[in-house]
Amino acid sequence: MKLVRYGTRGAEKPGMIDADGQLRDLSAHIPDIAGNVLADLSQLSTIDPTSLPLVEGDPRYGACVGQIGKFICIGLNYSDHAAESGMAVPPEPVIFAKYTSAVCGPNDDIIIPRGSEKTDWEVELAFVIGKPGKYIAEADAMDHVAGFCVCNDVSERAYQTERSGQWSKGKSSDNFGPIGPWLVTRDEVADPNNLHMWLKVNDAQMQNGSTNTMVYQIPFLVSYLSQFFTLHPGDVISTGTPPGVGLGMKPPRYLKAGDVVELGIEGLGTQRQICVNDL
Amino acid sequence: MKLVRYGTRGAEKPGMIDADGQLRDLSAHIPDIAGNVLADLSQLSTIDPTSLPLVEGDPRYGACVGQIGKFICIGLNYSDHAAESGMAVPPEPVIFAKYTSAVCGPNDDIIIPRGSEKTDWEVELAFVIGKPGKYIAEADAMDHVAGFCVCNDVSERAYQTERSGQWSKGKSSDNFGPIGPWLVTRDEVADPNNLHMWLKVNDAQMQNGSTNTMVYQIPFLVSYLSQFFTLHPGDVISTGTPPGVGLGMKPPRYLKAGDVVELGIEGLGTQRQICVNDL
Repeated sequence: MKLVRYGTRGAEKPGMIDADGQLRDLSAHIPDIAGNVLADLSQLSTIDPTSLPLVEGDPRYGACVGQIGKFICIGLNYSDHAAESGMAVPPEPVIFAKYTSAVCGPNDDIIIPRGSEKTDWEVELAFVIGKPGKYIAEADAMDHVAGFCVCNDVSERAYQTERSGQWSKGKSSDNFGPIGPWLVTRDEVADPNNLHMWLKVNDAQMQNGSTNTMVYQIPFLVSYLSQFFTLHPGDVISTGTPPGVGLGMKPPRYLKAGDVVELGIEGLGTQRQICVNDL
Repeated sequence: MKLVRYGTRGAEKPGMIDADGQLRDLSAHIPDIAGNVLADLSQLSTIDPTSLPLVEGDPRYGACVGQIGKFICIGLNYSDHAAESGMAVPPEPVIFAKYTSAVCGPNDDIIIPRGSEKTDWEVELAFVIGKPGKYIAEADAMDHVAGFCVCNDVSERAYQTERSGQWSKGKSSDNFGPIGPWLVTRDEVADPNNLHMWLKVNDAQMQNGSTNTMVYQIPFLVSYLSQFFTLHPGDVISTGTPPGVGLGMKPPRYLKAGDVVELGIEGLGTQRQICVNDL
């Protein structure tokens, strides 16, 4: 299933994309794509999508998951990206937090903070926790994953690394966390470790990679993270970016107002963002 | 006002402490001490506490704020604590995230994660955002603060600094974020920069300081943080700890099962936690 949240920000409704790519309303069946709904998505698989009301018009898409608890990002998880960032692949996963107030829809504007000069892009495969757990064995890890989505881990590099430590400061500005358009359930993704991923700025290809060069893969990450804290339904884990970010270019190339960022991952849909200044 | 949340974890009710220190039920007036309620606490000041139902028995206290969005911690914000940690006071505030799944009540157990050998304590003054804002001027900052509470910024030092970077990993284990007992509204705290604070382990005094040695004070922090992202009602900012943490002792002294941690801040109440192993 391809699950979505659509409508006005903060008042999104749950929906489903049918076999013809049309948006159908799921409101009569579930309150949101969030919380305990994620722990048992099988309840939705019995619904005939054509029985659901068609949604008219061209509504905004929201983040494909609501009420996100933890937004966990994995740093330097592609060896080539670590190299372009001038850092080594870490001996165990680097994790950092993106505050959930950064979460937005896949096509919402990228808001460049006042004074920012180093706003950058990162196409990433994210996965969403369904079944809660702690101290999860790697062999059981995928049972805890509800599905997958595209994430643009928008980053302000000066805030991240030149402003007194801890990356969260450069990862959490408003709208720095577009996720979606779809939450694609686990059963529809045959091999999450072999998905093509790409990102363009103003039609120029910047990132062109595959999840098959990820260092720490999803079952390991689920198990690893769950050693530190309980994973809850609605936790989102974004797994790192392949090479091609603005920071890694010579000279570096950062986003400015008017730039158009497009990105996507095989089978998970695409995002399109316009960059605007925060006036 | 001293506002509280009491009852079973995940189903806490709002309450108020009356002039005699008795717990009164606020459920008839507000759904929770959370969200937009925090943006307008003046609505509660017209209530005569003696008109509220007395709560019988000795209920558990939950975290004094619900639905926390961002749990932001300020690192190395007391010069003496920076020194005992072997680090310099940073040129601007270090901020790091404590995932909100770590939030718990003031007297809930400290859960020592499996394999942890360096679980440590930190008494801290936390403040809670009421009115939302972005790019807030320092002169207006206190208008955005709903109130204050005690926080124990429980930390696993090996996870924080010896496990491949970014402190969130050592700050976010389950129950590593006790806050409360009370959310004390801003009008009741004459000078948040001059509050005695202390922490004991098994009756031995470990921390004995005052918020008057804080480097970056609250109005500056509100303004500073709001340059990076919007502050929302229910965001909690914990402002750092004075000297006396286990890490700073020679030799270091960390928590083990059975230890009893007690802490408090002048006018904001006390917390008491028993350390247990996560079996």
